[in-house]
Amino acid sequence: MAHIELGVDEKQFPGITGLMRYRPETAKPLNALAEVLLRGPHPMPAGERELIAAYVSGLNDCTFCRDSHSAFAAAQLDSGMTLVDQVRADPDTAPISPKLRALLRIAAAVQRSGRAVTPDLVAAARAEGATDLELHDTVLIAAAFCMYNRYVDGLATFAPPDRAAYADSARRIVEVGYGG
Amino acid sequence: MAHIELGVDEKQFPGITGLMRYRPETAKPLNALAEVLLRGPHPMPAGERELIAAYVSGLNDCTFCRDSHSAFAAAQLDSGMTLVDQVRADPDTAPISPKLRALLRIAAAVQRSGRAVTPDLVAAARAEGATDLELHDTVLIAAAFCMYNRYVDGLATFAPPDRAAYADSARRIVEVGYGG
Repeated sequence: MAHIELGVDEKQFPGITGLMRYRPETAKPLNALAEVLLRGPHPMPAGERELIAAYVSGLNDCTFCRDSHSAFAAAQLDSGMTLVDQVRADPDTAPISPKLRALLRIAAAVQRSGRAVTPDLVAAARAEGATDLELHDTVLIAAAFCMYNRYVDGLATFAPPDRAAYADSARRIVEVGYGG
Repeated sequence: MAHIELGVDEKQFPGITGLMRYRPETAKPLNALAEVLLRGPHPMPAGERELIAAYVSGLNDCTFCRDSHSAFAAAQLDSGMTLVDQVRADPDTAPISPKLRALLRIAAAVQRSGRAVTPDLVAAARAEGATDLELHDTVLIAAAFCMYNRYVDGLATFAPPDRAAYADSARRIVEVGYGG
């Protein structure tokens, strides 16, 4: 049970969705940020940006965000959940582009601390073709999920244990987006 | 020097301000979130909410956010920077209310991990009078600064070393707010 009374059925509104019903004033900018970062016009496909979100959420051990953004990534990547699972298990051996691999290393550094992003990590990503915008958004996506993950788990919200439960939200995110 | 070319004089636009000039699309929800959390209508005074932001930023070792939100807190608290320094040094002995002390313990837990917020920490805050809204916003403020701190340091932005440099922004935040 969540640490606070959300005023909704937690099974029906799991994870961040119940929190957003509880406090619409903060839901609005939180959704708007996700919309720009994960679905706005961008050189990186939405599936790859969701992959960064799922990967960081896994590092933060946040079940709800990890499984929902894994589903959102899988729904927008040609190789689907197979690739998501490979990346989450080991980005170093997953069949992704060298650029995405270098950006995931930066995301992992951000998850530990902003100060862990070294000039060497940035230079390695640039050498694989990463642009300023891709570097900026990778850092901000990783940082934002260090927020979303702590928000969702810090209030002890419910996370459906079954991966299939996230399929409906995946369809809605791909079709409609985060709003905000 | 920042990891990316921000297109502004970094001394003139330090920390998050240069990043917000670089990417106005993400600046908008980031500012809107800070405005609701730190200045919106609330049972907790703005100075106390800024104190949570400054405290978490200190735990994350983010110079720019720590010093700017310390200045914003000091400008809105009767005891000013003396109290901010006492809280940042040791919330357990600082002359604050038992409720704020219990909320700062929750903020410190969030800084480590969302999963570190235990039912006992929540019960202790409730025993001192904390409401659901205060618990919710304490968790989200702490979580949000785990994002802002990583964003600012993950892109290696400039932080003025002199505390006095933050006084102008403090005046602007108190008078005008974060916008968004």
